[in-house]
Amino acid sequence: MLNVTNSKIIELCLDDERFSLTSGTILEYKRVLDMSNGSLSRELVWRSPKGKEVQITVKRLVSFSHRHLMAFKYQVKALNFSGKVTVSSSLDGDVENHTHEEEDPRFSATLEGLGLSVSKIIADQEPVVMVQETCRSNLVLACAMDHRLLSGSDAVKNIEQEHQKVTVSYQLDIKQSESICLEKYVTYYTSLDYPVEELPELASRMAAKGMAKGFDILLGEQSEYLGRLWDKAGLDIKVDNITSIEQALRFNLFHLFQAAGSNGRRSIGAKGLTSEGYDGHYFWDTEIYMIPFYAALMPGEARKLLEYRYYILDYACERARVLNHVKGALYPWRTIAGEEGSSYYPAGTAQYHINAAVAYAINKYVEMTGDFSFILEFGAEIIFQTARLWEDLGTYNSRKGYLFCYHEVTGPDEYTALVNNNFYTNLMARWHLNYAYEIARNLEINYPDQFKRLSDKIELDQDELQAWLKAAKNMYIPYDHILQIHPQDDGFLDKEVWDFKATPAERYPLMLNYHPLVIYRYQVCKQPDVILAHFLLPDQFSLDQKCRDYNYYEPITTHDSSLSPSIFGIVASELGLYEDAEYFFAMTSRLDLDNNLNDTYYGVHMANMAGSWMNLVYGFGGMRTTNGNLSFNPYLPPDWQGYKFGIIFKENRLEVEVKENEVVYSLREGNSINFRHRNKDIFIVEGEKVIVSI
Amino acid sequence: MLNVTNSKIIELCLDDERFSLTSGTILEYKRVLDMSNGSLSRELVWRSPKGKEVQITVKRLVSFSHRHLMAFKYQVKALNFSGKVTVSSSLDGDVENHTHEEEDPRFSATLEGLGLSVSKIIADQEPVVMVQETCRSNLVLACAMDHRLLSGSDAVKNIEQEHQKVTVSYQLDIKQSESICLEKYVTYYTSLDYPVEELPELASRMAAKGMAKGFDILLGEQSEYLGRLWDKAGLDIKVDNITSIEQALRFNLFHLFQAAGSNGRRSIGAKGLTSEGYDGHYFWDTEIYMIPFYAALMPGEARKLLEYRYYILDYACERARVLNHVKGALYPWRTIAGEEGSSYYPAGTAQYHINAAVAYAINKYVEMTGDFSFILEFGAEIIFQTARLWEDLGTYNSRKGYLFCYHEVTGPDEYTALVNNNFYTNLMARWHLNYAYEIARNLEINYPDQFKRLSDKIELDQDELQAWLKAAKNMYIPYDHILQIHPQDDGFLDKEVWDFKATPAERYPLMLNYHPLVIYRYQVCKQPDVILAHFLLPDQFSLDQKCRDYNYYEPITTHDSSLSPSIFGIVASELGLYEDAEYFFAMTSRLDLDNNLNDTYYGVHMANMAGSWMNLVYGFGGMRTTNGNLSFNPYLPPDWQGYKFGIIFKENRLEVEVKENEVVYSLREGNSINFRHRNKDIFIVEGEKVIVSI
Repeated sequence: MLNVTNSKIIELCLDDERFSLTSGTILEYKRVLDMSNGSLSRELVWRSPKGKEVQITVKRLVSFSHRHLMAFKYQVKALNFSGKVTVSSSLDGDVENHTHEEEDPRFSATLEGLGLSVSKIIADQEPVVMVQETCRSNLVLACAMDHRLLSGSDAVKNIEQEHQKVTVSYQLDIKQSESICLEKYVTYYTSLDYPVEELPELASRMAAKGMAKGFDILLGEQSEYLGRLWDKAGLDIKVDNITSIEQALRFNLFHLFQAAGSNGRRSIGAKGLTSEGYDGHYFWDTEIYMIPFYAALMPGEARKLLEYRYYILDYACERARVLNHVKGALYPWRTIAGEEGSSYYPAGTAQYHINAAVAYAINKYVEMTGDFSFILEFGAEIIFQTARLWEDLGTYNSRKGYLFCYHEVTGPDEYTALVNNNFYTNLMARWHLNYAYEIARNLEINYPDQFKRLSDKIELDQDELQAWLKAAKNMYIPYDHILQIHPQDDGFLDKEVWDFKATPAERYPLMLNYHPLVIYRYQVCKQPDVILAHFLLPDQFSLDQKCRDYNYYEPITTHDSSLSPSIFGIVASELGLYEDAEYFFAMTSRLDLDNNLNDTYYGVHMANMAGSWMNLVYGFGGMRTTNGNLSFNPYLPPDWQGYKFGIIFKENRLEVEVKENEVVYSLREGNSINFRHRNKDIFIVEGEKVIVSI
Repeated sequence: MLNVTNSKIIELCLDDERFSLTSGTILEYKRVLDMSNGSLSRELVWRSPKGKEVQITVKRLVSFSHRHLMAFKYQVKALNFSGKVTVSSSLDGDVENHTHEEEDPRFSATLEGLGLSVSKIIADQEPVVMVQETCRSNLVLACAMDHRLLSGSDAVKNIEQEHQKVTVSYQLDIKQSESICLEKYVTYYTSLDYPVEELPELASRMAAKGMAKGFDILLGEQSEYLGRLWDKAGLDIKVDNITSIEQALRFNLFHLFQAAGSNGRRSIGAKGLTSEGYDGHYFWDTEIYMIPFYAALMPGEARKLLEYRYYILDYACERARVLNHVKGALYPWRTIAGEEGSSYYPAGTAQYHINAAVAYAINKYVEMTGDFSFILEFGAEIIFQTARLWEDLGTYNSRKGYLFCYHEVTGPDEYTALVNNNFYTNLMARWHLNYAYEIARNLEINYPDQFKRLSDKIELDQDELQAWLKAAKNMYIPYDHILQIHPQDDGFLDKEVWDFKATPAERYPLMLNYHPLVIYRYQVCKQPDVILAHFLLPDQFSLDQKCRDYNYYEPITTHDSSLSPSIFGIVASELGLYEDAEYFFAMTSRLDLDNNLNDTYYGVHMANMAGSWMNLVYGFGGMRTTNGNLSFNPYLPPDWQGYKFGIIFKENRLEVEVKENEVVYSLREGNSINFRHRNKDIFIVEGEKVIVSI
């Protein structure tokens, strides 16, 4: 992931004094992220070393409605002087990635000397355009900027071009108490989406178009766009006078809103686009953590994210060949373009469960939206190709009564690797094989032509379908009869429990303080594994069983992974462990806002952000979709007075409000909806609401 | 491992025609490695494009007696012409490694741009000297050359210096049927052994000294040196008229002879110094495969190789800290200077058994030589520090009756990784802990002062000694009661057996044709693991048990590792499987000479070379040392008429000759020796021989 042309530079000179936060005196400073209109503002008052005082207000937005456009409004007010002012706005192509010198291996590979280089600057007219190119892959990026000066009509404008930089500057006179205002419109276009030769023109045209609209109009559009989303999300949390909980959730949702925008050829990185952690790679985070959110609030986005998996299916097939499977597909553990980007396969490629994650997310999307067309167009092929791998990967183990076993796989918990019969993997594989079989049967009966075309294309026959069913039926699910729990894998319980008492707080996260060979040797989990399976497939075991598993794994889980607390929170809710649930909800909801893991510098934790929303909706609200049926099992966390959230289920907008004694379900949009509240069937038509006791 | 200054260049011009193997016509060509005098000769007759015919004879040697010296004798005879001849001899500093572009990951890391650079050339006097330096570590190398022209006194000499090259050339007249002869003396000195500023002078002085001796004297010394070694080795193999067997063994021993020369700060790389495979790194190969050879024929060398392990003990202690062990030492899996050079720890650092290999080799050395002083000076500290790790690494597993277990280790067989209770590891750890305890008790009683000093230094107390004993006593040794064999590890038998029938010959070695995740998933071995433990610790299990284990593992072992056939050969001999034994002996003995693995380009397989000698002595000869006692259990391979070998046991040179009906034991040097022939005690005094029936 490369940093693009830096277009954020606007510099200010008061006569001969250049504004800088490190010289002079900052008299006031405020930075505001306005989540209702998606703008970031900075307001400050600065006294120059020579005593001139200015108020500077900068507001910027990245447009939701115009995907290539970014806009700035830069205002300067002379507080105690009159004089010459120069405002210079630049595009700077000399960018580098800033985390590449970090030693933390999770965050970024070294890209030294492999960044973008400037190939062209068009500065003889406005908008000015800078074209840059990547060294190896020759991807081309065009960045344009246009400006409007709203005051100071007698300004002297100058365009200066350097080797890797181009600057438009305005020199003008300012009088005490007067303001000047510069608007800047920036656009980016890349050869991933458009022909190289058209990029400068496209960038230039869009910048001019943005300028024609003007900043305030764009801000209005922004506000409208987000307003619709906030309305759908319907968040309202009442906890005494504490606003921090709702603030945290809104902050997380805001990031999910702005990470959206897939065109079916991209997914969402573990850090979104907020920093360089994990090199921008996409993991299973999208499918298991984010898709439920998007499917419920931005179903179109969820579909595009899943289309991306179809877009890279050929790579996944090639990857399966590299792993010596003659058929089927194996999704890369981390990727952008489709190739496996993980270099340490025991904690990368060996996480075969990513195949199930993709199939699972497709199912959840279809259950939530009713959009079976996705299965016909893309889903079935993905589900079949990935199911094949499960059948090929396992073995009927004579030493386990010929049950179907998986060896040398890595489950979600990365504090173990290369294990046999990981509970999560086996359970998800069983689900996946059954689901693939069902889908095949469904297509065969209801869409025989499509099924024939697809079967021919991927050479799928009845024997193979039967083989899936047989593997699923005979799947080995590890169980320990002494402890009456599910061991995470065959060897897990043989290991000593990690000595938590002897581990001081500063030695967490363990992976930064202990060699993997040490961590692998103990019963210690980075994140839910058995417990995640219980969340994803809630109808497979009794509550008692889930409770025993929870009580075993919770104390040995460090939550060193940001994928951890949200899941534990949801399952704690299901099990009636309300104290735990609140604890984990606090952990997940403010994780980035409070920088609790001390690594938000590398980017926010997108999966956790979606997880915090799931904590509200799936945890407190007890929402589930099972076999296409929606259900709720809500409760009010002990310290709360109420909460509200909205979801879209099969094009119906439902709002759920949980109060102290009752739950109000309102159908805000759509024809009618039915679902279960606990054991009660509920049916609502548009505009109506149903009130049930909690 | 860097290629040093190239000093092998001698070029020839006949008038204006430059000799080259790729122009003109080669009329005769012969290359001979003379293993009796350690010289390599090339003899050829060349017809130039213009029809001049010359006979060229080049002989070169790397001196055994003078460790810095190399010498050449270059002769040219004009066969059909008279004319001008120019002979040019160079030092070329523009060297690079030639395997770095290979894709095979076993062989070499990329060193592009990291080679030696020339820092000085002294060419105003002879010997000329070139000084080179490494880029990062600033190691300095001086290379000097001196010449003597033995004919053609009216030659015109010229010294030419280029940027990275220096050339001494002689121009002279030659008459038909006459010869000229140039001797070249080259020396290398490095800053690893001497102060940087003295290197040019040292190199220069030694080159002159070599020249003063002259090539033929050096050749004589060479012959004498090797003669003594060949005499000690006492090889004589009678198999009809087949000489290829003895030739192969001599070729292997010759490489072992020339790999020797440790000064206690270096060991022997997996490929010796014969090519760039494995980057010149030292592995456990030295201890498990080579030390038995050196201990038996070059005991001084064996001691130096073990001293090397003491020299890097501090690094091994640091490495243990990296692996979060508060005490003890863990030897790096691959290293030169002492730091871990393996980047993939599941098949590197996780091979904890290297600790046992070092302790085991020390024990074998002491048993063979009686040199207990090594234990006092170096051995005890190594043995204790490495034993500590075994105690810290394991755990009393409540689920296995509180027996002592090892999790997440990799055994010798690299077709599995990160397993629990690897049979080899557990068995060797048990032996190691017991041995460390014995040594400690021995020192405590017999060398109380030394023991106190050492105990204080490494903070060793009685509790820890008891802990070693307890771990050893309670060591878990995996056993399968159904198959009545030792499983390679806890999960090994759960896996499917590799489908050998479906694996065509060209897909071997498996590691180059299958992803490790695939290989790890099957019962398939690259090399002996259980079987190696049976060889190293022969008195732990019954012959029947070893036979069952052999019969189980032999069919599932691919021998993709050159460490494999020799061990299977020895154990086959022990078990009376003579056909197998001959098969593996053939495999091990000519492995490099016939380039059977098709990778000798990357260097010869030093461990296998020593292994082939062990096949003769430990396999056919049935030699063992147990608790300091020597024994033989020889047999004659079915197709052989006889064989002979020599060993040095506690300073006594014993020769063993196995004939069709009898075995002749002769004490060639030393006072007296006793040992067992099968169940019979034998005692011989110097000069005597004892004949027993076979």
